Amino acid sequence: MLLPPTQQHSLMMASHSPRILSLTRRAFSSCSFQGEGVSMVQGASRGIGLEFVKQLLENDDKEHVIATCRNPSASTGLIHLKDKFADRLRILPLDLTVENSIEASALSIRETYGRLNLLINASGILSIPEVIHPETTLNKVEKSSLMLAYEVNAVGPILVIKHMWPLLKVGGGHGTGRSAAVVASLSARVASIGDNRLGGWHSYRSSKAALNQLSKTVSLEFARKKDPIVCILLHPGTVDTDLSKPFQRNVPPDKLFTKEFSVQKLLSIINNVKIHDNGKFFAWDGKEIPW
Amino acid sequence: MLLPPTQQHSLMMASHSPRILSLTRRAFSSCSFQGEGVSMVQGASRGIGLEFVKQLLENDDKEHVIATCRNPSASTGLIHLKDKFADRLRILPLDLTVENSIEASALSIRETYGRLNLLINASGILSIPEVIHPETTLNKVEKSSLMLAYEVNAVGPILVIKHMWPLLKVGGGHGTGRSAAVVASLSARVASIGDNRLGGWHSYRSSKAALNQLSKTVSLEFARKKDPIVCILLHPGTVDTDLSKPFQRNVPPDKLFTKEFSVQKLLSIINNVKIHDNGKFFAWDGKEIPW
Repeated sequence: MLLPPTQQHSLMMASHSPRILSLTRRAFSSCSFQGEGVSMVQGASRGIGLEFVKQLLENDDKEHVIATCRNPSASTGLIHLKDKFADRLRILPLDLTVENSIEASALSIRETYGRLNLLINASGILSIPEVIHPETTLNKVEKSSLMLAYEVNAVGPILVIKHMWPLLKVGGGHGTGRSAAVVASLSARVASIGDNRLGGWHSYRSSKAALNQLSKTVSLEFARKKDPIVCILLHPGTVDTDLSKPFQRNVPPDKLFTKEFSVQKLLSIINNVKIHDNGKFFAWDGKEIPW
Repeated sequence: MLLPPTQQHSLMMASHSPRILSLTRRAFSSCSFQGEGVSMVQGASRGIGLEFVKQLLENDDKEHVIATCRNPSASTGLIHLKDKFADRLRILPLDLTVENSIEASALSIRETYGRLNLLINASGILSIPEVIHPETTLNKVEKSSLMLAYEVNAVGPILVIKHMWPLLKVGGGHGTGRSAAVVASLSARVASIGDNRLGGWHSYRSSKAALNQLSKTVSLEFARKKDPIVCILLHPGTVDTDLSKPFQRNVPPDKLFTKEFSVQKLLSIINNVKIHDNGKFFAWDGKEIPW
């Protein structure tokens, strides 16, 4: 029912060609995708995002996954998955800080699949040597770090939701076992203002608190318009990834999760989500986290 | 005890001159400022900020106030107050988006007063024609608005706290009836994620939620270091100012406060604040607002 991967690729490369667009529309006009979920994982090059792509593909042999990241050719993990799941995995370049690239991805997904059932915002920035480092004191707070963290952790994911919104409305829960389309954005317990007991990490904490507020705001519009979309926030726990590597020293071994375990738990939350969960903030164990 | 206004002005203009700095240090080395509070109001050109300056000067004839805004010569309100309170009001140019100008203000205050007892972050951006407008739907969310609101409403105030921190540590509650120095930043009920029931206003809501998180984070460091500083967030109510003017239509008359009333209420909270209030978020009526 879906185009073979080679043809998909040419569509991706030439998604603005009117002739190809019109062919695509015809090809899919009668396609119901029954039993075939279409999921997008944004920030899929490595870590938790990559693991989401892997488990989505492995768990359901009819699932189609669009994996996006800034530089696909540098993601050995995605390239490896593409070898194994050539016909169900599509990789698109998307730079969160460039809104055009988000729009281009939305256009490309619309033309090939016409809908989305699941959007996972998995990207996140915590530390990059010489660029941004989690602050240990107010004295080390820099404007450039605050702005960069906000751009990547809060603004980018919301722009992705904005541009995928029409596709999620079409998708709803159709072709999946879910009651609605799901937008799941990775937040973190340290985003919680009420649960903030240690301080520090100003740029990360404030950008993720802003992401929480933006997701809550968006969820209210989905509800008011009766869109078949549930928008939730997820705390994955402390997961053994590149992001957490420099900060694992004080984490007890039983609190440091593998990405396999964390993503399994988060997918269970996503797959069992109900309409009344719209706008909520869940930890990996399904417990709600205070704002 | 303070230098006469003319001399203050020349100090402000030449605050980097070593000769004058050394004179200033001598002049104040034995100065206790007993019974003389030193307050800074950031964002003082009009509206709530200007009203804070006015009431602080009127309520206590020994109070010294530093009023900052981007363009002092354009603030007729401040110029009018300067005529009346020449010896106790100092006006400094400060552009929140330019960290150098914040540092210059801190240096100038240090050299003249050597301390601060109260810092009020009163600035805020909600709408500017052709630049930023409160969003009514996700479709109208623009990256430029999100970034600008964050820069002005969250980043700027935190950088002001960062640079005034040493002055607040010296000041504590000395010379005032308060138990500690107070940092009061104007937030808003719409910053509350838990209380968000209407959605919309994405840029404003997320930037103020981030300000809440940053203030909470900073308050924890003040507490850990046993600094004599209490950091709180304030919701002024819907106040009849230029900021709220375009959005007053649906506000019942008894819920639209004068700035005189709102600032009176907020100053009462500030003047009665206790150490255990550090990190809290209060409405004008003294009730706590959920995060």
